[in-house]
Amino acid sequence: MLGMFCVRVCSGLVGFRMATCVRTLHSLSGITVAQIDEEVAKLLELKARLGGDDGKHQFVLKTAKGTRDYNPKQMAIREKVFNTIISCFKRHGAETIDTPVFELKETLTGKYGEDSKLIYDLKDQGGELLSLRYDLTVPFARYLAMNKITNIKRYHIAKVYRRDNPAMTRGRYREFYQCDFDIAGQYDAMIPDAECLKIVHEILSELDLGDFRIKVNDRRILDGMFAVCGVPDDKFRTICSTVDKLDKMPWEDVKKEMVNEKGLSEEAADQIGEYVSMQGGMDLAERLLQDHKMSQSKQACAGLSDIKLLFSFLQLFQVTDKVVFDLSLARGLDYYTGIIYEAVLTQAGVAAVSNEAQNGANAEESVSVGSVAGGGRYDGLVGMFDPKGRKVPCVGVSIGIERIFSIMEQKAEASAEKVRTTEVQVMVASAQKNLLEERLRLVTELWNAGIKAEVMYKKNPKLLSQLQHCEESGIPLVAILGEQELKDGVVKLRVVATREEIDIARTDLTSEIRRRTSEA
Amino acid sequence: MLGMFCVRVCSGLVGFRMATCVRTLHSLSGITVAQIDEEVAKLLELKARLGGDDGKHQFVLKTAKGTRDYNPKQMAIREKVFNTIISCFKRHGAETIDTPVFELKETLTGKYGEDSKLIYDLKDQGGELLSLRYDLTVPFARYLAMNKITNIKRYHIAKVYRRDNPAMTRGRYREFYQCDFDIAGQYDAMIPDAECLKIVHEILSELDLGDFRIKVNDRRILDGMFAVCGVPDDKFRTICSTVDKLDKMPWEDVKKEMVNEKGLSEEAADQIGEYVSMQGGMDLAERLLQDHKMSQSKQACAGLSDIKLLFSFLQLFQVTDKVVFDLSLARGLDYYTGIIYEAVLTQAGVAAVSNEAQNGANAEESVSVGSVAGGGRYDGLVGMFDPKGRKVPCVGVSIGIERIFSIMEQKAEASAEKVRTTEVQVMVASAQKNLLEERLRLVTELWNAGIKAEVMYKKNPKLLSQLQHCEESGIPLVAILGEQELKDGVVKLRVVATREEIDIARTDLTSEIRRRTSEA
Repeated sequence: MLGMFCVRVCSGLVGFRMATCVRTLHSLSGITVAQIDEEVAKLLELKARLGGDDGKHQFVLKTAKGTRDYNPKQMAIREKVFNTIISCFKRHGAETIDTPVFELKETLTGKYGEDSKLIYDLKDQGGELLSLRYDLTVPFARYLAMNKITNIKRYHIAKVYRRDNPAMTRGRYREFYQCDFDIAGQYDAMIPDAECLKIVHEILSELDLGDFRIKVNDRRILDGMFAVCGVPDDKFRTICSTVDKLDKMPWEDVKKEMVNEKGLSEEAADQIGEYVSMQGGMDLAERLLQDHKMSQSKQACAGLSDIKLLFSFLQLFQVTDKVVFDLSLARGLDYYTGIIYEAVLTQAGVAAVSNEAQNGANAEESVSVGSVAGGGRYDGLVGMFDPKGRKVPCVGVSIGIERIFSIMEQKAEASAEKVRTTEVQVMVASAQKNLLEERLRLVTELWNAGIKAEVMYKKNPKLLSQLQHCEESGIPLVAILGEQELKDGVVKLRVVATREEIDIARTDLTSEIRRRTSEA
Repeated sequence: MLGMFCVRVCSGLVGFRMATCVRTLHSLSGITVAQIDEEVAKLLELKARLGGDDGKHQFVLKTAKGTRDYNPKQMAIREKVFNTIISCFKRHGAETIDTPVFELKETLTGKYGEDSKLIYDLKDQGGELLSLRYDLTVPFARYLAMNKITNIKRYHIAKVYRRDNPAMTRGRYREFYQCDFDIAGQYDAMIPDAECLKIVHEILSELDLGDFRIKVNDRRILDGMFAVCGVPDDKFRTICSTVDKLDKMPWEDVKKEMVNEKGLSEEAADQIGEYVSMQGGMDLAERLLQDHKMSQSKQACAGLSDIKLLFSFLQLFQVTDKVVFDLSLARGLDYYTGIIYEAVLTQAGVAAVSNEAQNGANAEESVSVGSVAGGGRYDGLVGMFDPKGRKVPCVGVSIGIERIFSIMEQKAEASAEKVRTTEVQVMVASAQKNLLEERLRLVTELWNAGIKAEVMYKKNPKLLSQLQHCEESGIPLVAILGEQELKDGVVKLRVVATREEIDIARTDLTSEIRRRTSEA
């Protein structure tokens, strides 16, 4: 294909060239340099047009829609974010697993409701029908059922795939990372759930993304609330998905959708409106347990009691400052059965990232950049995979890492500090010619001692270009070799930042480099 | 789908059950426990048969063919291997990039010759035609051309996809990791090439997989050799791929293929046979430069001079002990233009991993487990993507990580040492009831101080089960709380291995844990 394209484009080009060249050649004897330049410019213009229009239809040098490469700078930021997240997961005793990027198509079928249309299928090339994973939760549940695991605390960081409408400047891609932490097992109520919130609190604090809030609710409270407000059973789910829009739409519009589109009575909608405006902490849960309507629902009461218990654990975990019991929180996914939560950044400084989506929201909410973490309890999902329907209760959280990357990248660009993309401690350099062998000998000594070192792949590089490379890539030290240093058995160690230079005995070099670059 | 399966299988089961139950119920009054057991056994047998035959066609709980999950133990090994490899890449000053798991189909077209049939295509769901990446080299070349990068030293560790015949026990999968290190840029000859070999040497030594050898050859020497032996130009590639089989077949069979299948003259084959049996070092390159036939090929001479230069650098890098100039090495991929290399493990102890493939080979080769690393120089690939055909010389190496995982997993299983899957330093436990709150308070203190700590998610767990958990998962310390300890402001710190217990003032606890678990 590429080969064919080359031939086609080139022959086109040759055609153009020929015409121009023939003209040029005819007047070769009398041609001036200026005329040559003019002809060259014409040819180049033609060439650019070829590549710019016709060429484009033949071969496009790009990544697939909704995907991106990570360059070294972005990778350095990504690595930093991952390290923070993984350290936290490990601090809480999690193991890690990995699953394939594609699953049997039927493993994903019936798990995502309407969103199933966003699943990437593989072409039927004979053999099994496969699909790219849509999230990490369903493969996790499949893994537990397949291996009959009833207890595990695991994290999984990997890419997932959704044929959604990408909005890449706001960190919404078709290929994106999820960082999931889940606790599976039959335990006493709300202890693992509270730990998930503690983890979100730790990660968002450590990443230093500005102030945040973690909204908490419970699927049972929502269902109970719908029941006591007079929502027919078969409308729970659709009304729930309308409530879910409250972070993007004002109540009036949400109510309109409920009444006009979903056919709910105005009275029921108004009752829901009253509840979903409520925010608080343990006190709100206590008040609602006394609420004459809410208390009629067994489900709601079970949820409210668990919220109370949850807050008592959150107090012990010292994270109640950021956690809000918010009756308007209604996460979309079908598989949640109990507590649900979502973390949002509230700092105005990063609002630009996604404030498009916020128009119409009230003043306080308009500064949020949307959800950066979310999760909840899903006690039924593993049972869907088990041949005997055996349930494994699970609770988990997923960190929305792409939005965090977007914010971190913007911060890095705004900051004066340079992002280093390598960890090189020292550059082995020389000011004189014919010292390639000596440089290679020295860099070998350093590598063998575990020092991160570089040497230029040139026989006789200029000292200036070697020093420039250090400046550009943030290498702090240069080990300079010359005839004199070799004779004296020393190396001249130069500190790039200060330009200070000192002679170090060759035998002491590695320990001196280690001392000067240790981050203690 | 899953729902439907359940209904169908269950109704089948109900049918069987009904018949059995009806019989059972008729004699309910006089039934014995033994009879019940018998009936239950019959039912279970029926159920198993259902699940084993009919059930299978409806819903299979498995991963896609040729893929696997990594469980926490495998992940711990994988992490260790990756850390060794990444440390080495970083020690040599590499940056890292990432590219999407799928590319435009046309990006991969025309790069892999016959192997193109092994590429996974995505289903055409509207929009672009996409394929899963087949290796990391072609996406790297696309990345360089697209971003007009002419100089980079990068590593990339990611999964690639090949619809090949899997042989999973020997570490051959359809989804597998590649660990690639490449140096792109116009540099002085053989310096980056030598560094790639130094890297292979460092990684294989550090992974401690037993003895190994790195075979080196040059595409130009092969082509020159074919020319001087009288192979027609249009047969270079096919004869080359026959030579590539020498590590799996004896010379007699390779010759037969050349003569009988590829139509080469017996005389030419015999001449090739003489050359490809040659192995050596710099001396062999020197000898061949004097060889009356070989020296007639300019190409071969260029390759041989570079091999000489390469060995001089390898001497400085102190890695010649493992490197062999081997004229039988002929790597398959089309895009190589200069030096090529391949590392093989030679230790008998790990031969079991792939000795199937070795029958017919000679005694020395029969102990090799096949290639664990390979690479070479490809100066033309980036130019295939550049609209103006601008070349960016590249040399790189790919570590065959799945085979290494297989070996490491076997070693781990054979060894008595337990693989830890978490890094938890301390378990917060209690021997008494009603101390959940106190345990949560203490574990919060530890987490907030950066200690990796766990607590059981039970109100009143038994001390024994808490200690057992430590034994099983290798947690070295237990911080035990009781009424007395709380009163005294201390924590009882128990060393799991020795069962030694000492009281530590609560204020000193984190530093004491850190002291006892630091790996200095």
